[in-house]
Amino acid sequence: MEENIKNCPHKISTTDRLKIVLDTSLFVNPDVRNSFGKSPLEAFEAFLHLAEQLPSMEFYMPPSAFKELLYFVGKDKIPTDLLLYLFQKPPKKYELKCPAFLLYELIEDMRERINKGLRIAENAVRSAEKIGADENIKDLRRKYREALREGIIDSREDVDILLLAMELDALLITADQGLIKWAEKLGIKWLIPEMFKDFLVSAIKREEIQV
Amino acid sequence: MEENIKNCPHKISTTDRLKIVLDTSLFVNPDVRNSFGKSPLEAFEAFLHLAEQLPSMEFYMPPSAFKELLYFVGKDKIPTDLLLYLFQKPPKKYELKCPAFLLYELIEDMRERINKGLRIAENAVRSAEKIGADENIKDLRRKYREALREGIIDSREDVDILLLAMELDALLITADQGLIKWAEKLGIKWLIPEMFKDFLVSAIKREEIQV
Repeated sequence: MEENIKNCPHKISTTDRLKIVLDTSLFVNPDVRNSFGKSPLEAFEAFLHLAEQLPSMEFYMPPSAFKELLYFVGKDKIPTDLLLYLFQKPPKKYELKCPAFLLYELIEDMRERINKGLRIAENAVRSAEKIGADENIKDLRRKYREALREGIIDSREDVDILLLAMELDALLITADQGLIKWAEKLGIKWLIPEMFKDFLVSAIKREEIQV
Repeated sequence: MEENIKNCPHKISTTDRLKIVLDTSLFVNPDVRNSFGKSPLEAFEAFLHLAEQLPSMEFYMPPSAFKELLYFVGKDKIPTDLLLYLFQKPPKKYELKCPAFLLYELIEDMRERINKGLRIAENAVRSAEKIGADENIKDLRRKYREALREGIIDSREDVDILLLAMELDALLITADQGLIKWAEKLGIKWLIPEMFKDFLVSAIKREEIQV
C-alpha cells in the first residue's frame, strides 16, 4: 500500500503531510491579513475554515505566538472546535542545535544596535537644553526602541517560531522581515505571506480533484 | 602497543594530549597574570617557557584573541621559536552546532541590556540641565558601555574562544567571568586562572618523573 502511495503523485500519505508554521503577524499585520479578513478575528476565522478542508496539511503555532494572537483576537470569540486545526507546539529548545555562525551574527547585530542606541542617547542629551526634559525623554524612548528593535529577531516569540519551523522542517508563513531574514540563513522554507490564502485555496481545489 | 598505553596510567599517547584554550585576559588582566610576570610580555614569555616543557599538552588561542594579545605584548618582542608551542586556530564556525536554548539566553540578555541602556540615557537627559552637555555625554558613554558590556559574551573574540574550546573539548583558561558563565552552560572544562601556573608547574614535574 505504501508502494501505491509512492507511485501515485497525487496522493499524500499521512507521514508526508506538509507542516506549516504560522506567525501572529499573518493575522495582525493589516497589509497581510487583508486577504483573509478585515479584523484579526475575521482573518483568523477565515484561515481556520480553510485549514479545516485541508487534511493533507498540519498547521502549527508556538504557544507564545498563540498567546499573542489571542490578545488581538479575543479569547472567547474563536469557535473552539475549529482550533482542532491548529496545533500549539513549542520547539524542543533543549534538543535542537543551531549552526554556531549564528552566534556571531547575533552578537554583531547586538553590537551595532548598542552603538546606535548610544548615538541616539547622545543626541538627546545635546538637545536637552533646547526642548523640555519630558518631551525629550518621550522622543528618546521612541527613537531608541525603533533603532534597537528593527529588522532582527529580538524576542522569545521570534526564536520559538524559527526553531519550530526548523524542527518540523515546516513551511514558515510570516510577515516579519526579521524572521524571513533568519529563515534564509537557516534554510527554512517560506512563502510570501500575501500569497498564503491563494496557496490554501489552490490546495483545497487539488484535494477535491483527488477525492 | 595501544593496549600498553591504556594499561599504564602515567603514559600519555599523542591522541590523548590535553588541549588547552587560552584567553588574552590571562596575560592582560593584572590580577591573573601576576603569577606569570609583571607585564603582559613577561607573563606571556613565562608561559611559553613552561609550555615548551610540556609535550603532553597542546595550547591553542583563536587568531582573533592572539591579535589582541600582540597589541598588548608587542609583535616584535616575542621570541618566535617559542611560538611553536601555541597554535593559532579559529573554530569551525560553519560546522559547529550549539544548543538552541542559547539563542533564548542571548536574546533575553540583549533585551535586558537594551532596557538598561535606555534607563541610563533617560537619566543623562534629566541631568542635562544641571551639568554641561560635554561632561554629561562623557559620563553617559562610560555608564552606557559599562552597563551594556558586562558579564556576558559580546564580541567575536569571546565566541571564538568558546567555540574553539567546545570544538577541541579543551580546557579553557580565562579571567573573563562572562566566558566562564558560558563555559558552564556549554559543559566546557575550565580552571580558575590564578591556579594555571601551578597547574603547569605540577604537570612539568609529573612529566619529569615519567621520563
